[in-house]
Amino acid sequence: MQKIRASVIGASGYGGAETVRLLTTHPQVEIVHITAETQQGQAMSHLYPNLRHFVDQIMVVVDAARIGQGSDVTFVSLPSGQAMHMVPALLEQGSKVIDLAADFRLRDPSLYPIWYKFSHTAPAYLAEAVYGLPELHRQAILKTRLLANPGCYPVAALLALIPLMRSGKIQTSGIVIDAKSGISGAGRGGGGGFGFSEVNENVRAYSVVGHNHTAEIEQELTRVASTPIQVIFTPHLIPMTRGILATVYAPLAEELSEEDALTLYCETYSDAPFVRVLRNALPETKATLGSNYCDITVKINVRTRTAIAIAAIDNLGRGAAGQAIQNMNLMFGLPETTGLYFPGLFP
Amino acid sequence: MQKIRASVIGASGYGGAETVRLLTTHPQVEIVHITAETQQGQAMSHLYPNLRHFVDQIMVVVDAARIGQGSDVTFVSLPSGQAMHMVPALLEQGSKVIDLAADFRLRDPSLYPIWYKFSHTAPAYLAEAVYGLPELHRQAILKTRLLANPGCYPVAALLALIPLMRSGKIQTSGIVIDAKSGISGAGRGGGGGFGFSEVNENVRAYSVVGHNHTAEIEQELTRVASTPIQVIFTPHLIPMTRGILATVYAPLAEELSEEDALTLYCETYSDAPFVRVLRNALPETKATLGSNYCDITVKINVRTRTAIAIAAIDNLGRGAAGQAIQNMNLMFGLPETTGLYFPGLFP
Amino acid sequence: MQKIRASVIGASGYGGAETVRLLTTHPQVEIVHITAETQQGQAMSHLYPNLRHFVDQIMVVVDAARIGQGSDVTFVSLPSGQAMHMVPALLEQGSKVIDLAADFRLRDPSLYPIWYKFSHTAPAYLAEAVYGLPELHRQAILKTRLLANPGCYPVAALLALIPLMRSGKIQTSGIVIDAKSGISGAGRGGGGGFGFSEVNENVRAYSVVGHNHTAEIEQELTRVASTPIQVIFTPHLIPMTRGILATVYAPLAEELSEEDALTLYCETYSDAPFVRVLRNALPETKATLGSNYCDITVKINVRTRTAIAIAAIDNLGRGAAGQAIQNMNLMFGLPETTGLYFPGLFP
Amino acid sequence: MQKIRASVIGASGYGGAETVRLLTTHPQVEIVHITAETQQGQAMSHLYPNLRHFVDQIMVVVDAARIGQGSDVTFVSLPSGQAMHMVPALLEQGSKVIDLAADFRLRDPSLYPIWYKFSHTAPAYLAEAVYGLPELHRQAILKTRLLANPGCYPVAALLALIPLMRSGKIQTSGIVIDAKSGISGAGRGGGGGFGFSEVNENVRAYSVVGHNHTAEIEQELTRVASTPIQVIFTPHLIPMTRGILATVYAPLAEELSEEDALTLYCETYSDAPFVRVLRNALPETKATLGSNYCDITVKINVRTRTAIAIAAIDNLGRGAAGQAIQNMNLMFGLPETTGLYFPGLFP
Repeated sequence: MQKIRASVIGASGYGGAETVRLLTTHPQVEIVHITAETQQGQAMSHLYPNLRHFVDQIMVVVDAARIGQGSDVTFVSLPSGQAMHMVPALLEQGSKVIDLAADFRLRDPSLYPIWYKFSHTAPAYLAEAVYGLPELHRQAILKTRLLANPGCYPVAALLALIPLMRSGKIQTSGIVIDAKSGISGAGRGGGGGFGFSEVNENVRAYSVVGHNHTAEIEQELTRVASTPIQVIFTPHLIPMTRGILATVYAPLAEELSEEDALTLYCETYSDAPFVRVLRNALPETKATLGSNYCDITVKINVRTRTAIAIAAIDNLGRGAAGQAIQNMNLMFGLPETTGLYFPGLFP
Repeated sequence: MQKIRASVIGASGYGGAETVRLLTTHPQVEIVHITAETQQGQAMSHLYPNLRHFVDQIMVVVDAARIGQGSDVTFVSLPSGQAMHMVPALLEQGSKVIDLAADFRLRDPSLYPIWYKFSHTAPAYLAEAVYGLPELHRQAILKTRLLANPGCYPVAALLALIPLMRSGKIQTSGIVIDAKSGISGAGRGGGGGFGFSEVNENVRAYSVVGHNHTAEIEQELTRVASTPIQVIFTPHLIPMTRGILATVYAPLAEELSEEDALTLYCETYSDAPFVRVLRNALPETKATLGSNYCDITVKINVRTRTAIAIAAIDNLGRGAAGQAIQNMNLMFGLPETTGLYFPGLFP
Repeated sequence: MQKIRASVIGASGYGGAETVRLLTTHPQVEIVHITAETQQGQAMSHLYPNLRHFVDQIMVVVDAARIGQGSDVTFVSLPSGQAMHMVPALLEQGSKVIDLAADFRLRDPSLYPIWYKFSHTAPAYLAEAVYGLPELHRQAILKTRLLANPGCYPVAALLALIPLMRSGKIQTSGIVIDAKSGISGAGRGGGGGFGFSEVNENVRAYSVVGHNHTAEIEQELTRVASTPIQVIFTPHLIPMTRGILATVYAPLAEELSEEDALTLYCETYSDAPFVRVLRNALPETKATLGSNYCDITVKINVRTRTAIAIAAIDNLGRGAAGQAIQNMNLMFGLPETTGLYFPGLFP
Repeated sequence: MQKIRASVIGASGYGGAETVRLLTTHPQVEIVHITAETQQGQAMSHLYPNLRHFVDQIMVVVDAARIGQGSDVTFVSLPSGQAMHMVPALLEQGSKVIDLAADFRLRDPSLYPIWYKFSHTAPAYLAEAVYGLPELHRQAILKTRLLANPGCYPVAALLALIPLMRSGKIQTSGIVIDAKSGISGAGRGGGGGFGFSEVNENVRAYSVVGHNHTAEIEQELTRVASTPIQVIFTPHLIPMTRGILATVYAPLAEELSEEDALTLYCETYSDAPFVRVLRNALPETKATLGSNYCDITVKINVRTRTAIAIAAIDNLGRGAAGQAIQNMNLMFGLPETTGLYFPGLFP
């Protein structure tokens, strides 16, 4: 089989670089172009010394038309609001697109000004974009040319909530998502407030009300529930590099035993190769480090009639680049696990 | 003024050692006895090298009667279920007692078998014991000889919830407390699962349902609300040594603006020297490192009609030893801030 | 090609578990037995949750004869002094052996009582054992059935020193090796002193004089120099999980420019697939995290006539399990990089 | 006694902020002015939330003449090369000066262009400036109005080497200083390369040849030895916020037992209140966290005839602000330990 020609726009950021890292060992992929704006002209391996001898290629500035022409798939890993300017050209030139930012995640263009403070410039493409969570939309992913890779928090939050929401066993309001993330989620730039000395031995919440990932979580839960869902979502930064743990609290609508809840999760994810439902253990992010796995469990607090679901992922793996490669595999008819079937690092 | 003669039972654990550390610089205290079981015969400064030249004293085994006789106050910092065997002797010999464990926190002796898996052997003392959160019980603390120092999580959770609960603005059910703690909360022993390599770059929940601190949180909230309160409390371990951040979600019972909520907090804590209400910033544990401060703010999520209060403390400071010294000050008629009026370490 | 049947004795320790992790994705290997003493009867994935769905196999107690019979190769990852009791049986049953401890690293049996405090019980095997640093002994490794995998510190120290020592440009005394290691080097047990709270925000030296890795460093340097070499070696523990950085100071015996020194390194390692010589950057452990690479550079301090070589590895990768797999590849005639050709995790 | 009026120029950096923190609890000091360039107009406690309720004062821009007039002492904590422009005015207005940067550390003005890449603009003041290491220059410090506070690395390196150098037991060449520092040494700005994600789980050397602290180390050792001394000094960054561990290797000039070496250290520092010589333990930075102590020990490697001295400090405490306060105490005739007599934080 001929290799898939893949390009990465925005390779100097953490999401883009992790995509490049995973592509280097993907057996069916050949990397064609890698681009970076501020870091153009530098070797990829200068910024990412782990890639020495693997990707010593120079990062160039974006030329969407040229990239689209020479690529079977283009990963776009830029701050939200930039991909929408390039995607039309990329698609037109025949490249499939996997966008790691938010530009094509929301179906309703009117939500962008509200949650992202920009107006969408390519709203026509929102209808064909597929939200790339395979556990929800595997069939659509197989056929799309424009994939909106989910946000890191939504991956964990949705995988934790879907079985309960589908089952109708929980109430449709009062759902709390308390998420703890490693610092790499803030991106490579980091800067003010993300220096080691400020972050180490520290934990803090941020965007306590109104984090923009709320929008896609609600959109997808609403689709699952077929009724409007609003959630309370609070992200926190904790002193580690990678990983997200989402602790989700859902008031029960009816009786549900822990055993039945676990069975629900096992059944929901029986054919999901990258979800591991834990029956006798609690998820921890370290078990997923560097991998594409999501570890989940569910507990029932009988006294307060609450289901507590907990999901752990690597925010750069299942929460970004790993998820993107998994989607690429589906979009190109490869086995879903190609290039991703390896355990994380522990300890 | 004659110095207070203070002893510390269980000085080799983190809570006891932090008490000793704070006592070394307290201007009105003289340390008399320090005890340790497994570490007896060792110099305190061998285990705690920060105390070299300060406390090179040898740790001895407990002799409650002898300690009680020679001490004006005895801090007992042992695993829950042990202090109750010593406290009667200590009190009888004339020493006031500050217990850092749970033995005298719950007023109802029948709760001990449920939450702590032991039967109380000195239930007669529960009635006179005072729960040592000055913001709730300052007057009673002034007069007691038996003080139950609060658990680390309850300090943060209660300080975050009291103003809202008192105001009647929140509902009395559906309250979620999601807490993140540094590893020192697990104690010096540590052992299985608390090794650096397992904890670093990792976050996990534990005791997802049924953590025993739930009991005292509910007891105190019930007193404040004058109606039975049950809460959903989930602690998490994050890769840092000290600090607790509690994020508390409370469904509103009636309209409440963020401005009014903040005013509520400022008023409630106007005469609390160790609570800092933040108007334009979010609490972070690092701002409290090594100190006795609790930093708090409150946000209102209007869409979902939820109040979100966040509190940060040092689990060994305000969450244990600092709180204990503050209570000692009150019990001995000293200014509340004596020996505690210093800022934390940053960065 | 038929797969290599591999067993791992001591799979519950970090070195053994990392070997298992790497074997799970090695295309030419089938894992046969995994053993553990204290953890026997447990699933591998219970202790190492990253291996869920990969190695849910139960760990059994060692039966060397049985393992030797069914295995083409056996990795022994036990504390030093234990493998020597099993290796004869393993070899006799036809299994090749790769020992990750020190039992077969020293050629002179009289050194064991001195450096390791035990007398060797199988000294007859020391002559045939090959010290498994491919950059020194590739030809011998190809033919051996008994491989002594180097210690973690010696890998970094030797790779940093070999080019200079071979060249004769440095003096043969006064060499200082100052090494900084992550905590996983202390093993999974950890316990006293390796708890997160003691290790975090801390750095300390240990075994300041007389660390037992000194013996193999000196043995191999002596072979290279053909004259007795003694070194000053000091290991340090720093607050990270994985990684070793060795900073080596060697007094120059004659003039050597930095450019010439770098050329020396490039030439020495021109056919070493897992050594990366850095010309314009300094090694950092993070660039090797989870991989089998050793990154090296050399600087010349002209004022003091000193060469300073710096090497970075992952102590569990190139410093243990990765190195072991690399050696297995050579011993079985596979390409040296099989199953190891992937970059580390960054950030 | 009237309080000392103290000002801090450059209060927004870590060194300046730690000076402010220590001044807030100093019983004989009143803080007058605090200045910051880029952060002017902000409250000190906005940048340093630990100082809330302690220093909510606004940081202003520097006006050296005005500050000098109203202050008994001015701490200048700016990047090297800036203080020399202000010190003349400060002194002229009657303020004593403690400079935390390098501007007045080197006696020979010709060294500045070499090590610091700038020409000195106030060389006339170098002669009267006193290098503020009390263990070397206590008498001179008592009388000076211009104090050059030592660099963080030199404090640890010099305290580790002075007893050996004075004794004449070590050779005067071939001395290696391998230092490991927390990241706060890089300053608050941090930025490129000091983000949490790059620093965490990483160790690297920097300025491998030619770090500018080499100059003052050599200057002071030369004074002690009365013969020119050159050292090999290599700093490393390790993933922690505070702390420096210096491991010093000195070839012996004559026989010296470990016992005699330790006695030498004990005698040298018998009247140094902030040096703790360890007889049965190794220094660790955590034992000094937040304090002004330097913990030291010395080992003898008999085989290689090398003395190995190890010193631990808090780089912002004894390595900067704590040292500065200690010097202020001496300059104003206060007991040396005033405001500094407290143990560090552990764990």
